Amino acid sequence: MITVGVDIGGTSIKIGVVDTSNGSILQSTSFPTPHSPARNFAQSLAEFVRIAIRGREVSPVIGIGVPGAMNADRTLVRNPPNFPGWKEEPLAAYIREALPEFATVVMDNDAKVATLAEARFGAGRGESHFLLITLGTGVGGGIWADNAIFRGATGGAGEFGHVTIDGNGDLCGCGAKGCIEAYLGRSYFISRSRRRYLDERPDTLLAELFDSNTCEPEDIARFAAAGDEFSRTVLAEAGVMLGIACASVAKLLDISLFIVGGGIAQAGDLVFASARSALRSNVFAHQRDVVRLVPAMLGPSAGVIGAALITAE
Amino acid sequence: MITVGVDIGGTSIKIGVVDTSNGSILQSTSFPTPHSPARNFAQSLAEFVRIAIRGREVSPVIGIGVPGAMNADRTLVRNPPNFPGWKEEPLAAYIREALPEFATVVMDNDAKVATLAEARFGAGRGESHFLLITLGTGVGGGIWADNAIFRGATGGAGEFGHVTIDGNGDLCGCGAKGCIEAYLGRSYFISRSRRRYLDERPDTLLAELFDSNTCEPEDIARFAAAGDEFSRTVLAEAGVMLGIACASVAKLLDISLFIVGGGIAQAGDLVFASARSALRSNVFAHQRDVVRLVPAMLGPSAGVIGAALITAE
Repeated sequence: MITVGVDIGGTSIKIGVVDTSNGSILQSTSFPTPHSPARNFAQSLAEFVRIAIRGREVSPVIGIGVPGAMNADRTLVRNPPNFPGWKEEPLAAYIREALPEFATVVMDNDAKVATLAEARFGAGRGESHFLLITLGTGVGGGIWADNAIFRGATGGAGEFGHVTIDGNGDLCGCGAKGCIEAYLGRSYFISRSRRRYLDERPDTLLAELFDSNTCEPEDIARFAAAGDEFSRTVLAEAGVMLGIACASVAKLLDISLFIVGGGIAQAGDLVFASARSALRSNVFAHQRDVVRLVPAMLGPSAGVIGAALITAE
Repeated sequence: MITVGVDIGGTSIKIGVVDTSNGSILQSTSFPTPHSPARNFAQSLAEFVRIAIRGREVSPVIGIGVPGAMNADRTLVRNPPNFPGWKEEPLAAYIREALPEFATVVMDNDAKVATLAEARFGAGRGESHFLLITLGTGVGGGIWADNAIFRGATGGAGEFGHVTIDGNGDLCGCGAKGCIEAYLGRSYFISRSRRRYLDERPDTLLAELFDSNTCEPEDIARFAAAGDEFSRTVLAEAGVMLGIACASVAKLLDISLFIVGGGIAQAGDLVFASARSALRSNVFAHQRDVVRLVPAMLGPSAGVIGAALITAE
């Protein structure tokens, strides 16, 4: 089936024409995200979709990945953090209205959509159980269990970012203390690393970026790869925290595969080596040789591919 | 259906004749657990079953709850901690052999069996999702999701006792640091409370029990109920830790009901009030008015009732 998948992000909207039989993207276009009321947003989106598919024959079902929470039957988007004016919005109905050439609009949360993509055509291919972790502005997640997305009581399951690693630790935006996101979320990770730099004033290639307050996780990864000790240390410590949180989930859910994508994960083995070691030393003895922590395979395309795939779920 | 349910514990074996239509126990007998090799154990168990059912008409399927891990198709018991001589034992086959009058032996982990019992006839009745927590020698758990026991990749899911509350915290028997069991498991809870008593030497009714090293969680609950401040404090703090661990699970799995049974839980609101408060203040804003933490309803009978119920799963 040739299907349109839409990945709505806070900065850009990616629209792809996807061959759902093999997950390949036949064509893909990106548009800046309009920050308008949901009904107007849907109209802009409809125009973007028409441009992106340019007269191609596509399935009459379109799939949409959206950031944030939704209701259990996935018709309403609820207070998406990147769309401050939106409350509880019937986005699927608005898009359906704006795109009468499509018979059905299927919507799902972006992390769940990416989980489905990695399960079918990525690092989770052929696996019955795994946890997808996305290290970005926030720390997201999706639980794949018994060959399906695990949704929980109201569809909100998978919030790996708010698994506790230290109940007396740093305050997280969710109101709890010591969630893994409060250490590995982009701004938390940077401000923590910067605080440490300011305290210790180590010799580091990051000095200038920290002093000008323009450091990004990608910079830390880049300088770590170039051999900068301080950068390597903060990435290794991020890995340890990630591994501890994964171990907690491995024991609770009997899941042995952890697929990690997004910003900090691009530092690769600088994060993964310490994460694997912490994961192994914190799981049950019988899990130690079984647990795996691997990079995501589909990268930023997971959203578009997964959005197309949810039309067939 | 009138069905035999067997709850194998480290100290005693409970055998009940259960009406599976309403969860009532028609008769129930308890025997001391023989610590013999698994095959001999099965023969003793067969004798106990014959005594316990005394010529009653029962279903030809018998259900057995066993402590510890098993293989995915639930025929083998693996290294149960309370049966040191056992390795990987085909207990279901041994029992079938010893009890030819039964056509089928169905076996499951004791926490999962109790979860099923609470789901059908206890505090989880009518609920699609909850977590059962048992506070005993260890801290056990069972995940009820989409109206079924959630088993994970190899059947081992539900180990709530090894959810992390402090990745730099007290060492747990599983090898990790800061698992909730390392604070609320019976011996951990007692030694932690005793250490604190020895350090602070507060005025407490527990003094004599601590000094003679004979204090049990039930004593702390009893003296707390009698107004002892120190006892109330350690129970309230136990509640906070429990609430933090529950909140981590509430966010990861989108589960809003937590059913708590066993030792420390018998202290009731002395533990539950602080647990509820910590749970509420550590979940997402939209979960705050939805989460519930309630006592288990079936008490020590959950094992026998659940064992009978698994025969119909």
